[in-house]
Amino acid sequence: MRDVCIIGVGMNDWGELWDLSLRTIWTQAALAALADAGVDKVDAMTVGCMSGGLFVGQEHLGALLADELGMAGIPATRVESACASGGVALRTGFLEVASGLADVVLVTGVEKMTDCSNDEATAALATAADQEWEVFPGATFPGLYAMMARAHMAAFGTTREQMAMVAVKNHANGIHNPHAQYRRAVTVDEVLNGTMVADPLTVLSCSPITDGAAAVVLSDKETARRLAKGRPLVRIAGVGLATDRMALHNRADLTALNAVTAAAQKAYAMAGVTPEAIQVAEVHDCFTIAEIMIIEALGFVPRGQGGPATAAGETGLGGRIPVNPSGGLKSKGHPVGATGVAQAVEVTLQLRGEAGARQVAGARIGLTQNMGGTGASSVVHVLEVIP
Amino acid sequence: MRDVCIIGVGMNDWGELWDLSLRTIWTQAALAALADAGVDKVDAMTVGCMSGGLFVGQEHLGALLADELGMAGIPATRVESACASGGVALRTGFLEVASGLADVVLVTGVEKMTDCSNDEATAALATAADQEWEVFPGATFPGLYAMMARAHMAAFGTTREQMAMVAVKNHANGIHNPHAQYRRAVTVDEVLNGTMVADPLTVLSCSPITDGAAAVVLSDKETARRLAKGRPLVRIAGVGLATDRMALHNRADLTALNAVTAAAQKAYAMAGVTPEAIQVAEVHDCFTIAEIMIIEALGFVPRGQGGPATAAGETGLGGRIPVNPSGGLKSKGHPVGATGVAQAVEVTLQLRGEAGARQVAGARIGLTQNMGGTGASSVVHVLEVIP
Repeated sequence: MRDVCIIGVGMNDWGELWDLSLRTIWTQAALAALADAGVDKVDAMTVGCMSGGLFVGQEHLGALLADELGMAGIPATRVESACASGGVALRTGFLEVASGLADVVLVTGVEKMTDCSNDEATAALATAADQEWEVFPGATFPGLYAMMARAHMAAFGTTREQMAMVAVKNHANGIHNPHAQYRRAVTVDEVLNGTMVADPLTVLSCSPITDGAAAVVLSDKETARRLAKGRPLVRIAGVGLATDRMALHNRADLTALNAVTAAAQKAYAMAGVTPEAIQVAEVHDCFTIAEIMIIEALGFVPRGQGGPATAAGETGLGGRIPVNPSGGLKSKGHPVGATGVAQAVEVTLQLRGEAGARQVAGARIGLTQNMGGTGASSVVHVLEVIP
Repeated sequence: MRDVCIIGVGMNDWGELWDLSLRTIWTQAALAALADAGVDKVDAMTVGCMSGGLFVGQEHLGALLADELGMAGIPATRVESACASGGVALRTGFLEVASGLADVVLVTGVEKMTDCSNDEATAALATAADQEWEVFPGATFPGLYAMMARAHMAAFGTTREQMAMVAVKNHANGIHNPHAQYRRAVTVDEVLNGTMVADPLTVLSCSPITDGAAAVVLSDKETARRLAKGRPLVRIAGVGLATDRMALHNRADLTALNAVTAAAQKAYAMAGVTPEAIQVAEVHDCFTIAEIMIIEALGFVPRGQGGPATAAGETGLGGRIPVNPSGGLKSKGHPVGATGVAQAVEVTLQLRGEAGARQVAGARIGLTQNMGGTGASSVVHVLEVIP
């Protein structure tokens, strides 16, 4: 299997972009990544998008967007795994280069979520859960995560304050990210006293609806060396994708994210590292409880200790294992198909030492973790600087 | 790059399956392919589906269907390229094995198209075209293909009778396919005098709305040899994926399918063959004119000769290059995400000599060609029997 490097990254300014279309924001991100890589053509392309059909009434995004970029002709594949679509797009692009079928691949993620009504967006997002067994009987997405939060509180004594600290930390980080949707601090009181969405999750416990796109350029190692121009070389050292039972009621334990653990174990084994080696991580904090459960599933903290570790500052910018320096889904925004790719953008910037005020000092090895639905799918990548 | 073989194939009985759900028909096909391969677990899975969101209100099909099969845990990727989704799922499964990340991969395609109204199905299919520049101004999908047919008639003198012969041939073949949706003959007169959909295309010039699923099991060559049990070994010798301008008005020539030609050239080069070597082909006859343009784009006949060659019987079962022995999309049906995988099912059966009354005698090398939209994406695979 060939080595695969990330040679360029880019994203647009995320937010509620009423005056821009899906193809426009996608092109902004793609052009930024190509410029950063210093290439003007690629051998293939992947597009992560959860639901072009339901959000904007447009499928066939691979061909459409290759054309939009002036690259009609290249192989283009759209992949989907709900909110993990971007991470899966990265893994599929990895396969293109690793197999030898392509040398340079443009990996992208995009979601345009504000071109439909709020009800339509909520219904579109709910297609990440089991329609027949969860959504049709009346469960909402925040409702499913609220049940997971309740189970975690019951099993481990996790508190509302600890969960709120995830939002406080990620908003504090996002202030320093020029592409983030919400560049403002929030306090524990504001999170706790926000409008209740699904008890114990208030509106500030949830990631927002976002329009956004992100892109990275992958290449084989030789091409990466040729184009490095003195910048640190970032390699994808480990790749893991896994699934879990789709519906919550089929899982033996609501407090465990088995797909995250399985994906991480694959990625760690492939990279030859343990969780202790990871110096910076971008994880899927779609709800505050999710980040707490994820840092446990990744092995950053012991089972049940996600809440106390967060409250103790272990995952803060100066902490033992900084998590979501970009602001995470909470502050940066969560255009579902783009999120997994944007995580790779952030960790690449961190490993290059180009993350500005949110830089994790001396980071040489990092991780991205992207998740679909209530954890029925998860993708983990381990990235490292190589000589 | 590792060699990749097809070691199992399966599909359900296609049709308007009012009493079966997407997950049920998918599971029928998946279990049939696993049984045919003689395996009960796989390392990864791909799902080709055009629009789970618009047809049945369910995305996240990778995780959902892995779970449905009792295989929650495995990496599962859903891919989409409109009506070429199945072909792209096959290519993505190929990458999993070729890269070395997996040894045994279940490749599947599915579409459940009758759980919504006819208007909703028509709208869902139209998302394969450019919504902003083609569909919103009023073009229908048959209307776009009718324009391509008109251009072909004007440029080359292709006749309505020649186009009708595509339907006659494919329905004649489909009679012998136990899984086909319409197992009955049609005559040139019936095609010509059918209800007009978009002049010159009548209702019998168009492929139907279909519920269906198909699956193949891929493996590396060593695993394939171990499981062959005396059956011929079928290898994926060539793989090609390409795109073209999305909207018809941006193409220099409405009578050329550039993505088909580009995908075929890649697949031929990788397999080390020329079009003359192909002994049996399954191609994307979504409309009768499409098959005529495709056999030209693949190099089976000279430009402009698709009509006369069809009328002369060159593509019939006993002809020079038999095309769509399965019945094609016209007779077998066209559950859009499943079609590309079902093409691989048929060519594998042909190369194994297991195609019964529709067997192409002595076929050792075959081709599948799957297409999205009006040809904005196309996937070609060359399959061959190896010693």
